[in-house]
Amino acid sequence: MKPGKIILESYAKQFNPFLQQFFEKYKTEGMLGYIEEFCQRGGKRLRPALVYYGYRLLGRRHSPRIVKASLAIELVHAFLLIHDDIMDESSLRRGKPTLHNIYAREYKSARFGESMAILAGDMCQCLALDLLSSLNFPLELKLRVIKKINDAIIKTVLGQELDLRLEAAGVSKTKDILRMYRLKTPQYSFECPLQMGVILAEGRLRDLQLVSEYAIPLGIAFQIQDDILGLFGDKKNTGKSIGADLKQGKQTLLVAKALEKGSKKERKIIREALGNKNLTKHQIEEARRIIKENGALSYAKKLSRTQLQRAKRALQKMQKQNYNQEALEALESIADFMIERKM
Amino acid sequence: MKPGKIILESYAKQFNPFLQQFFEKYKTEGMLGYIEEFCQRGGKRLRPALVYYGYRLLGRRHSPRIVKASLAIELVHAFLLIHDDIMDESSLRRGKPTLHNIYAREYKSARFGESMAILAGDMCQCLALDLLSSLNFPLELKLRVIKKINDAIIKTVLGQELDLRLEAAGVSKTKDILRMYRLKTPQYSFECPLQMGVILAEGRLRDLQLVSEYAIPLGIAFQIQDDILGLFGDKKNTGKSIGADLKQGKQTLLVAKALEKGSKKERKIIREALGNKNLTKHQIEEARRIIKENGALSYAKKLSRTQLQRAKRALQKMQKQNYNQEALEALESIADFMIERKM
Repeated sequence: MKPGKIILESYAKQFNPFLQQFFEKYKTEGMLGYIEEFCQRGGKRLRPALVYYGYRLLGRRHSPRIVKASLAIELVHAFLLIHDDIMDESSLRRGKPTLHNIYAREYKSARFGESMAILAGDMCQCLALDLLSSLNFPLELKLRVIKKINDAIIKTVLGQELDLRLEAAGVSKTKDILRMYRLKTPQYSFECPLQMGVILAEGRLRDLQLVSEYAIPLGIAFQIQDDILGLFGDKKNTGKSIGADLKQGKQTLLVAKALEKGSKKERKIIREALGNKNLTKHQIEEARRIIKENGALSYAKKLSRTQLQRAKRALQKMQKQNYNQEALEALESIADFMIERKM
Repeated sequence: MKPGKIILESYAKQFNPFLQQFFEKYKTEGMLGYIEEFCQRGGKRLRPALVYYGYRLLGRRHSPRIVKASLAIELVHAFLLIHDDIMDESSLRRGKPTLHNIYAREYKSARFGESMAILAGDMCQCLALDLLSSLNFPLELKLRVIKKINDAIIKTVLGQELDLRLEAAGVSKTKDILRMYRLKTPQYSFECPLQMGVILAEGRLRDLQLVSEYAIPLGIAFQIQDDILGLFGDKKNTGKSIGADLKQGKQTLLVAKALEKGSKKERKIIREALGNKNLTKHQIEEARRIIKENGALSYAKKLSRTQLQRAKRALQKMQKQNYNQEALEALESIADFMIERKM
C-alpha cells in the first residue's frame, strides 16, 4: 500500500496545474493576484484529493473534470482560512504572512489589512461557486454539490461561532470542545469533499452514508491531532508559530482536559498562560509539561486513535462491498498519514 | 401612477411575512437570531421588489414562489452590509447599532465583535444560497440565478476593493470614483435583482439587455444620490450619522469634484476634514458650504439626473414592446422615488 504522503503528493501534482489554469481566466491584478499567491503556497491538497477518491470509490475512472471539480473545495478552504486568520489574529499561514498581514504591511494599516482580507475571503467563496456552476457535469449533480458545500460551510461557521464564544468565556468543558470540533472540522474537511465526489459519480444515499462513517470520526481525530501539533509540533512542519494557540487563548481539548485533571497550582499556571500575548518560552514549556504529565495529552492521543480506528472500520465495511479497491487503499493511507503527521 | 414609495411599501408588506417564515426554519439561537433581527429592521426592500417586477415585466402573474425567490437578494444585501459596516467602522445601520457593534458591546471586545460579524456575513451568503437551491423553479433557472447573483457579488467585491484603495490613497479623480461606482452598486442593487426576475420568468437575452439599460444608469444615479444624502441628508431619514463619510475619509464624487474645482484654501479645508475622526460640526458645515458653492453639488445632481433620464428612456423603449404595463409603471415610480428621496 502506498503511503498517504505519496498519495497526496501525487494528487497535488495533478491538481496544481488545474489551479494555475483556473486563475489564468481571471485578471490577476489587485485582489485576484493575492488570492492566487495564497492558494499556490501549497498545502497538502487533502480536501481536493478526497473529492477525487470519493469519485473513484464508485468505480469511476480518472478524468480531468473531477480534478477540476476538486478545485472548488480548495477555494472554499482558502475562503475559510483567510477569514479564520483575521479572527485568530494569526501572523503566519503555510510558512508565509497571512493575507491580512500582507495587506496591512503594504498600506501600513491594520484596518486596511483586515478589510481587504474580509473581501478576499468573500471573493474565494464566489470563485468556488463560479467554478462549480461551470463544471461539465449534469445540472442536477452540480446543484446538489453546491448545496452540499453550502451546508458544510454553514456547519463550519456555526462551529467557529461556538469556538469564539468558548474562547471569550475563557474556560470550557471537554464536552463543549468536542461539540465544537464536531461542527467545525469533519464536515467541511472530510465528509463534504468525499460526498462531493460520490455525488458527482452519481452515488446513492447508502454510499453517502458509508463515506460519512469514515469521514466524521477521521475529522474529529484530525482536529484533536491538530491541537496536539499546535502545542507540541515543530514550526517547520506545521508552518504555525509555536504556542500561538495558547497565546490566543484558544479553547482546545488538551487545555480543557488539563484544567479538569490538574492540581490547583497546575490550573493556575495554565490559566495564566491562556490568552497571554506576552507568553514566555518558559511558560509555554511549563504548560506543555503539565498537559503531558497530568494525562491530558495521552487522553487526547487515545481519543484520536479510537476515532481513527472507527474510520478504518467503515473502510473495512466498504471493502466487503463493491467499492473500488484502489480508492479504499488510498483512503486508508490518507487516514494514517493525517493522524501520524510529524510532531 | 402609484408613487414609488407606495409601491415599495406594498411589496414590503408581502415580503416581510416570507422573511419571517424563512427564519422559522432555522434555530434562531446564537448567530441566526442576530441575523434575523438585522434583516427584520426594515429597509426599503428595494432589491426584492426589483426581482418581483423583473418577473412581472414578462407577463408572469404574482405567485408566492417569486416572492420567496426575492428573499435571496435581501440576504445577500445583509451579507454585504454586515461586512461593509466592519470595513467602514460604521456604528449605525438602519437606525440601530451595526452587528459588529452589538457583538462588541455584548462581549466588551472589538475583536470579538468584528470576528462574529465576519462570520454572520458569511452565514448570510450561505442562507441566500440555501434558499435559492430550495426554490420551486426548474433546475436550470435556479442555477442561472445562482450564477447571476454570484457574478454580481464578484463585481461588488471588486468595487469595494477599489473603494478601499482609493480611500487609502487619499485623493481620487472623479474618473476613478465613477469607475468604482459602476462596479459597486448598479449590478448587485439594480441589474442583478431585475435580471433574476427575468431569468425566473424564462426571459431571453434581449430581455436581460433591456432591463440592464434601465438598471445600470439608475444604479449610478442612486449611488451619486447616496453620496449627496450622506453629506446633506437628515439622520432621521438616512439612519446614518451625519458627516460619517467625511470622517471615514470616503472618496466620493462630491469630494473629488470639490477638490478639482476648489481654490487652494478650499482644497485645504476639505483635505483636513477628510478622514478626520474628530471632525467638528463647524468643519462639516464648512466642507458642505464649499461643495455647494464651488459647483460640485450641482455637478453631482446634474449627473444623477442625466442617468435617471437614461434609465427612463430604456423604460420607454420597453413600453413600445410587449412588456407588462403595470410592471413598467412600477419601475418608473421606483426610479423617481430612489432619486428623489428626502434629503
